[in-house]
Amino acid sequence: MMNPRHEACRVAVEDLERFIRQALLTRGADEASANAVTRALVTASRMGIDSHGLRLLPHYLKVLDGGRVNSQPTMRLSRRLPATGYLDADDGFGHLAGYTAVDHAVKMAREVGVGAVAVGNSSHFGAAGCYALAAAEQGMIGLTVCNSDPFVLLHGSQSAFHGTNPIAFAAPVEGEAPYLLDMATSSIPWNRVQQYGAIDRELPPDVAADEQGVMTSYPNEVSALLPLGGATFGFKGAGLAGVVEVLSSTLSGMLNGFRLLPMGGSDLATPRGVGHFFLVMNPEAFIDRAGFQRCLHDYLEDLRSRPAINGQEVLAPGDREWRCQARRDLEGIPLDVANQSDYRRLAEVLGIEALDEHSSAEPRSDAVR
Amino acid sequence: MMNPRHEACRVAVEDLERFIRQALLTRGADEASANAVTRALVTASRMGIDSHGLRLLPHYLKVLDGGRVNSQPTMRLSRRLPATGYLDADDGFGHLAGYTAVDHAVKMAREVGVGAVAVGNSSHFGAAGCYALAAAEQGMIGLTVCNSDPFVLLHGSQSAFHGTNPIAFAAPVEGEAPYLLDMATSSIPWNRVQQYGAIDRELPPDVAADEQGVMTSYPNEVSALLPLGGATFGFKGAGLAGVVEVLSSTLSGMLNGFRLLPMGGSDLATPRGVGHFFLVMNPEAFIDRAGFQRCLHDYLEDLRSRPAINGQEVLAPGDREWRCQARRDLEGIPLDVANQSDYRRLAEVLGIEALDEHSSAEPRSDAVR
Repeated sequence: MMNPRHEACRVAVEDLERFIRQALLTRGADEASANAVTRALVTASRMGIDSHGLRLLPHYLKVLDGGRVNSQPTMRLSRRLPATGYLDADDGFGHLAGYTAVDHAVKMAREVGVGAVAVGNSSHFGAAGCYALAAAEQGMIGLTVCNSDPFVLLHGSQSAFHGTNPIAFAAPVEGEAPYLLDMATSSIPWNRVQQYGAIDRELPPDVAADEQGVMTSYPNEVSALLPLGGATFGFKGAGLAGVVEVLSSTLSGMLNGFRLLPMGGSDLATPRGVGHFFLVMNPEAFIDRAGFQRCLHDYLEDLRSRPAINGQEVLAPGDREWRCQARRDLEGIPLDVANQSDYRRLAEVLGIEALDEHSSAEPRSDAVR
Repeated sequence: MMNPRHEACRVAVEDLERFIRQALLTRGADEASANAVTRALVTASRMGIDSHGLRLLPHYLKVLDGGRVNSQPTMRLSRRLPATGYLDADDGFGHLAGYTAVDHAVKMAREVGVGAVAVGNSSHFGAAGCYALAAAEQGMIGLTVCNSDPFVLLHGSQSAFHGTNPIAFAAPVEGEAPYLLDMATSSIPWNRVQQYGAIDRELPPDVAADEQGVMTSYPNEVSALLPLGGATFGFKGAGLAGVVEVLSSTLSGMLNGFRLLPMGGSDLATPRGVGHFFLVMNPEAFIDRAGFQRCLHDYLEDLRSRPAINGQEVLAPGDREWRCQARRDLEGIPLDVANQSDYRRLAEVLGIEALDEHSSAEPRSDAVR
């Protein structure tokens, strides 16, 4: 068996961007789609959100080839009222839908203070944080939610119902990277079960259940995840997943997550009809910019100066991600052996220049998740 | 020692309303303030949220007498842009600020699709769910958040920083009571520590810590609560509390929760400057009403029909509260011995007619929390 510690390598951000973009264009994606998917995957990989970064490219190429995702979508916004809109994503990439919706919402927020866009007929959009971040980069507060296919139990239930239904929130911080929370409403993501299973490692207690809804920490017994809060307080995580569901599927007229075709299913031809929801708010529409920034600065200063236990460090949401990004921008983005093999194969099959694996690295040693 | 099981009684909703309103008016609150506080406390008590119901009246009368809360506030809305406003609550009751802000936000949502109001110079507003509910009762989606004084640890920290910072969300459901989630971002509320301490009962694991930040289940050792997610996944609960903080204090220019004067502190004269945030969205501004209601109906039907474990029942957020409300509207609202003694004393001191304790009841037997 190969030891992945000796096999991992790093690639430069620009080279990864070049590769992802070229791969998508080669398979027929239009410029806008290729750019949006590239931006989202590279953003996630730079921040250390490896579950939603470069590893997803092979999947996206498969659904493009299968026809599930429309390579040349015409995304249309109906701005129903000055602060709201519905974006029909025409079964294109969720990443393009996400960035498009946020751009519209930012314009609305500049005009009337708030912009809210429900998106229907979309597909997987990668990391929810990308779109909240896109709002914060334009000086706005951003909130993004999205439903997904069922992996997570309801409280006191024995079969999966909600997806890991993420909530992402970002706010602009003067002179710093944005405040950024991007969290699933389950305790762990589904792919952690697979990762731990592969290395025969036990899961923490109170995060997953078997087919009878009984808790288990053995990855090979896991049938579903528990909502955040576990067996006792999971009604809170399930309730948050429900809020995500109401905003992302009912406001967009889509099927709820329980009825969604599985992202990883064998049907690569039928559009899944994923729904998203994006809220953008202009801080200056509530208070002057200086007052907002002073309060936010004081809050973050208070937070970061709290005493930590056991030599830990108290961090604000996003701090870990921005550190990872600074390191990866300098040293390159790590690819584990599986990623390397996927990307080598893609280069061959698609006839594009392989990644320049320019330095060795501890695999995912700096990953955030 | 009295056995509270034999001493509890129930009072009719209307009689409780009469009493609370009269008590507040007697102590100088203006009509609008008395009505708003009464509405919020009785709403919480009817739904079984006993921690934020009738038991708070003595506290509110104390802060009125002390001057911390302004009995005759002039609350002014600055509608800065068509979808946003800032409400200066003039140090009045948070309940009046909350209902006032939601009414303004509902008007904005009718006009432009969304209404968002940040409230500053406010005070404790009771249960956050009351205001999300007020939006849903007018056909709107409502989101309410509020910071509070420090009770909850940051992840990996050893001193309390955030408050229990609640998130409340409600959506109108045709032919049914609204979908309603009202949750603290800690696993348990602070007063559960006190309740369990009083009856010498251990807390569940992973919800509270002692002065060194070490977990404990003994109420008398507890110095702070853990965020939702506990010792391992508490970064999620802490992150959600942070979202609440950013929305409720920085958008309103108020001090963050860590710097707030304690609600239960001895200074009853200095206004605390609590901040709230209210978001109201018109579903019809995204999708036609019928489509929204059909999707929401299907989602709730799917949810409620999931198989439960161990004879439990799978409920949607709010289901438990609406059942409790139906029962209490019929049988009366329970007062435990401490409540009865408080209310008897108030009747004497204020010279108002005592509650008509018309039937005996298991104390809080039907409480939701």
